[in-house]
Amino acid sequence: MDNRKTLTNHVRRMAESLVKMGVVHAVISPGSRSTPLAYALASTERIETHLHVDERSAGFFALGLAKATQLPVVLLCTSGTAASNYHPAVTEAFYARVPLIVITADRPHELRDVGAPQAIRQIGMFGPHVKYEVDLPIPEDSVAVDDYLERQIARSIGMAVTEPKGPVHLNAPFREPLLIDFEQEFPSVTFMDRIAGHTFLTTEQKDQVSELISSATRGLLVMGECLPGFDKGQVWAFAERMNWPVVCDPLSNLRSEVPETSRHLCIDSYDALLKNESFAAQAGPDTVIRIGPQPVSKPLTLFLKKVRPQTFLVVDESPIFRDPLGIATHHLQVNAMEVLSVETRTQQEASYTDKWSQANEIAAVMTENYRSDGVHEGDYVRTLLASLPDGSDVISGSSMPIRDLDTYFRQTARDIAIFSNRGANGIDGVVSTALGIQTARKRPTWLLIGDLSFMHDVNGLLISRMQTMDLTIIVSNNDGGGIFSYLPQASIPNHFEQLFGTPTGLSFAPLAEMYGIQYDSVSSIEQLESQLAEEKKGPLRIIEMISVREENVQAHRELWNAIGEELDRNGF
Amino acid sequence: MDNRKTLTNHVRRMAESLVKMGVVHAVISPGSRSTPLAYALASTERIETHLHVDERSAGFFALGLAKATQLPVVLLCTSGTAASNYHPAVTEAFYARVPLIVITADRPHELRDVGAPQAIRQIGMFGPHVKYEVDLPIPEDSVAVDDYLERQIARSIGMAVTEPKGPVHLNAPFREPLLIDFEQEFPSVTFMDRIAGHTFLTTEQKDQVSELISSATRGLLVMGECLPGFDKGQVWAFAERMNWPVVCDPLSNLRSEVPETSRHLCIDSYDALLKNESFAAQAGPDTVIRIGPQPVSKPLTLFLKKVRPQTFLVVDESPIFRDPLGIATHHLQVNAMEVLSVETRTQQEASYTDKWSQANEIAAVMTENYRSDGVHEGDYVRTLLASLPDGSDVISGSSMPIRDLDTYFRQTARDIAIFSNRGANGIDGVVSTALGIQTARKRPTWLLIGDLSFMHDVNGLLISRMQTMDLTIIVSNNDGGGIFSYLPQASIPNHFEQLFGTPTGLSFAPLAEMYGIQYDSVSSIEQLESQLAEEKKGPLRIIEMISVREENVQAHRELWNAIGEELDRNGF
Repeated sequence: MDNRKTLTNHVRRMAESLVKMGVVHAVISPGSRSTPLAYALASTERIETHLHVDERSAGFFALGLAKATQLPVVLLCTSGTAASNYHPAVTEAFYARVPLIVITADRPHELRDVGAPQAIRQIGMFGPHVKYEVDLPIPEDSVAVDDYLERQIARSIGMAVTEPKGPVHLNAPFREPLLIDFEQEFPSVTFMDRIAGHTFLTTEQKDQVSELISSATRGLLVMGECLPGFDKGQVWAFAERMNWPVVCDPLSNLRSEVPETSRHLCIDSYDALLKNESFAAQAGPDTVIRIGPQPVSKPLTLFLKKVRPQTFLVVDESPIFRDPLGIATHHLQVNAMEVLSVETRTQQEASYTDKWSQANEIAAVMTENYRSDGVHEGDYVRTLLASLPDGSDVISGSSMPIRDLDTYFRQTARDIAIFSNRGANGIDGVVSTALGIQTARKRPTWLLIGDLSFMHDVNGLLISRMQTMDLTIIVSNNDGGGIFSYLPQASIPNHFEQLFGTPTGLSFAPLAEMYGIQYDSVSSIEQLESQLAEEKKGPLRIIEMISVREENVQAHRELWNAIGEELDRNGF
Repeated sequence: MDNRKTLTNHVRRMAESLVKMGVVHAVISPGSRSTPLAYALASTERIETHLHVDERSAGFFALGLAKATQLPVVLLCTSGTAASNYHPAVTEAFYARVPLIVITADRPHELRDVGAPQAIRQIGMFGPHVKYEVDLPIPEDSVAVDDYLERQIARSIGMAVTEPKGPVHLNAPFREPLLIDFEQEFPSVTFMDRIAGHTFLTTEQKDQVSELISSATRGLLVMGECLPGFDKGQVWAFAERMNWPVVCDPLSNLRSEVPETSRHLCIDSYDALLKNESFAAQAGPDTVIRIGPQPVSKPLTLFLKKVRPQTFLVVDESPIFRDPLGIATHHLQVNAMEVLSVETRTQQEASYTDKWSQANEIAAVMTENYRSDGVHEGDYVRTLLASLPDGSDVISGSSMPIRDLDTYFRQTARDIAIFSNRGANGIDGVVSTALGIQTARKRPTWLLIGDLSFMHDVNGLLISRMQTMDLTIIVSNNDGGGIFSYLPQASIPNHFEQLFGTPTGLSFAPLAEMYGIQYDSVSSIEQLESQLAEEKKGPLRIIEMISVREENVQAHRELWNAIGEELDRNGF
C-alpha cells in the first residue's frame, strides 16, 4: 500500500467534500500533526486560507467570517492544547448559533492515553458546546472509508447549518509520515448534494397565530439580533399593517435603513424611556412577539418581567427557545418570516402606539442634544455614529460599548450594520471577530471596544502580519472594568479596585508601534471629530479615547434623569 | 430568610474549607457572578489572591503556582466564556498532573439554557480533562447544604491531590443579589481533616521487583520529569549501588546538584550520542526502569523502540501508565521511591556502564567546546546556562528551548531547577507558567522561550500591572516556527513559509515599553554575555536574542556530525 497516496487521497477528499458543502474560508494554525489537511486546504483553489498563530484568536476570526457570511467556516489546528484554545470561540458559536467546522488533527489510536507528546483526549473535549462530533477514521486504502468520509462531512456540515446553527467538531487522526503528494490528481467525490427542506406553518397553525395576534389591543414587537440576510422589509410591513411599535435592539439592525413610513414605529430609545417609572406604567403591552434573542437592555427586561404580558410569543427555530425572563406563553418554532407574514386583522389601540412614538421622540431628541460636563464615552459614541458613512459596519464590544450604542444609536436612513458577540456575552475574542467580519464583508468597519476587552484579544492583531487587514479600532480606555461602576459592587468600597476596577494603567501607543499601526489618542470630542475627519493612512488604525470611569457613570445618570424630567413635563 | 447572611455564610464556608484542605493561593479574574466568592477569598487572610484579567493566562499562572508548590491552587472566574478560557491550562494540568481547583461561578438553574446572558452549560464543559466535577448547590439556609458543601470541597481537593494529581471543577451557582456582609462572623467548619494513606509494595512484590532488577546485566535507568520534592538522593544511591547509567531528561532535575560520586553515571548527552548509529548499536540495555514521563529526546525514543529491551519497567502511580513507545513489559503502580529502595544484588556488566560514561564524556566535552560559524540558539543557551548562579530556576518553552536545554545543559554541582509544560507540550501559557513558578518559589528565574510562544501568552504580562513580578525573559526570536525547520515539512517548498514558518516580523521593544519592562536586544554571544553580566534594573526584564532559523539548523547538524566523528575516532 502506498501510504502517501492514501493520505493524499484522504485529505484531498476531505477538502473537496468541504467545498461541495459550501466551505469558502478555512482558518489554519501552524502545527505538525495537521500538516496533511493544511496542505490540502491551502492547495485547494476554491478555499481561501487564513493563517493565525494564536488558536484562541483564530477561533474568533473564523467566528467573524461565519457570522458575516452565514456559511460554514473551517478551523484547523494540530493536536493538543491548540484545540483547547478554540473552546472560547466554540462556546460563543454554540450560543450565537454560528456554523463553525472545528477540525482538530489527532494522533492515531496507538498514541492516545499513553503519555505521547501533544496527545490529549480530543473526543468530547468541547463538552456540551458542539452540536455534533465525530472521530474520523485513519486514512486507509478503502472505498468504504472514502465513501464514509464524504458523507460524514456532509452530515457534519448539514448539522452545523441546520437551525439553530452551531459548531461541530471533526477529530481527524493522522499517522506519520505526514507529507502529501502535491502532484497527485484530485479524487472525484460521489456524494453530490444536500437538499434541506424548509419549515412552514400549516393553515391551522397560521389561523392559531393569527387569532393570537389579532386579539391584541396593545401589541408590541420586540426585535433582538438579526444577522445579514434577514428580511427587514417584512418587519416594517408587519408593523405598518398592524400599527405596532417595534422595540429595536441595536443588533436587530432595524435602526438603519428605516423606511420613511415606519420611522414613528421604530422605537430606539426604550432603554432610557423604560427607566422612567411613570412611562413604564403606561406602556405595558397585552401581547408581545419577540424575535431573535432577548435584547441587551436591562430596563426592557425588568419592564417586560413586571408587566408579564398576557400573550408572549417567542419565535425561535430551536426547541430550546430563548426566554430568559421565563414568561413566554407560546413558543413558535419556525422562521420569523412565517410569523410576520401571517394574514390577520388588527385591533391595536392607536393611542398606545402613539404614546410609544411620542415618548421615543422626546427621549431621542434629548439624547441627541444633551451635553454633560466632562468627557464621557456616550459623547464619543454619538460622535462616532454621526461620522459613519452609508455602508459601514460597526463591531461592538459586549460590555459597555453595546450599551452605549443602545443609548446613542438613533434610527437612520443610512446602512450601518452593528455586530456583537452576544451569544455568551464574553469580552474575549472581539478584535478577531471584527477582523473576521471585515474580511468577509469588505466594508468600511469600526470596532468600538473597551480597554480590557481590547487587551484580552490583542493577539487578534497577529493575523495582520500574515495578510492585510482593514479596520479602525476605537478603544475606549477608562483603565479597567468600567461596567462594574454601574453595578451594586461599586457601592461597597471593600476590594472594589482590586477585584473589579482592575486598572492596568496601559496605553496602546507602543502596541500600535509594534504592529506598525496608525495610532492617535483623543481626550475630547473635538479631537475625536478631527481624527475621524482624517483619512485612514494604512489598513489598520487605532484611536484611543481616554475617558474617566466616574464621569461616565455621572453623565449616563444625568442623561437618564433629564429624559425622565422631560417626559414628566410632557405629561407621561 | 436573610439572603445576604445565607450567601455570606456559604462563601465563607467555602473559603474556610479550601484553606483547611491546603489552599494557599487563589487566582481570580474579574466578573460579576463570581462576586460573593471573590469577596470571601480576598478577605480570607490565609489565602493569597492574585488578579488576572485574561483567564487563559490566569489558568497558566495558577498552574505555575501549583506545579511549584505541589499544593492545590484555586482558579475563580465568572460564568460564560471566561470559563472556556481556562481550558488550555486545565488540559495541561490534566496531563502534567497538577492539582488545579477550577471554580466557575454560574447562574442559577432558572437562568440556564434559556438564552440568559453569560449563561453557558458549564457542567461537563472541560470534557475528559478534569478528574472530577461537581455542580454545587445554591446557597441555602440549611445545615444539610452546609455540611455537604464542606465535605464536597474535601472530596474535590482530595481527588485533585491524589496521585495522579490533576484538575477538578467546581461549578458554583449564585443568585442575585451578590453582595456579602463583610462584618459577618466566619462560620466554624465541622469537617476536620483528610488523612490519606500511602501505597507500598508488599514483601512478595518487592521480591518480584528485586528479581527483575537483579537479573539485568545491561541495566539502564531512564528518568523523566521530576518535580520539586522528589528525593534525588535515592536515584543516585540506586545508581551507585547497581552501577547503572542514568539517562537524565533536563526536566528530571538530576543534572543539577549531582554528587561527586555519581557524576560518571549521570548521562546528559544521550540525545547527541544516540544519533550515532554505531554507539546506539552497542548501547542497548536488557533492562530499563523508566520513572516519570518519557523524556523529550526523539533519538532516545527511537533507540529504545529499536532495542525493545527484554524487561521494561514503567514506574507510574496511575493505572493509565505512560508508555508512548508501547514496549513496557511491567507496570509498577507505586511511588518511585518504593522501587528505588528495593534491596537487590547487581549483575551489571561494568564495561556496559563504562561505555555510556566514556561516550557521554566525549559528547559533553564536544558540546561544551564546539563553536560554529554564525549565530545560533544553542550558543545562546550554553552562554545563558554558564551564567546562572547557584539557586536559579529556568522555565523552558516546550518547543525548541527544551531541546536546546537537552543538548546544552551539562551536569553541574549548582542547584538549577528546570521546568517546562510537557503535559501536552503546548506552546501556550508559558509566560504565565513562569510567572506563577517564580511567584511561588521566589528564586532568581529565567524564562527561555521562542518568539511565537512568547507572543501566544504575551497577556501573561498583564498580571505585572496588578502585583510585582520578578523574571528575566530570554526570547529567542527567529521570526516564526523554528522547530518546523527540523521536520520533513521543511524539505517541501510548497506552502512552507505560509503554513509552518509563519514569520510575524515582530520585535518586542515596543511591548517592553508598553509594560515598562527593561529591554535589550542581542545578536551575538558577546552581547548576550555582557547583558547577562549586568544587574537587572527592575523586576521584569526582556532580552531578545536575534537568531536565524537556517543557521540554527545548520549549527545543530554540524555539532551532531562532529560528535559522531569524535565517537568514531574513539572506537565507538
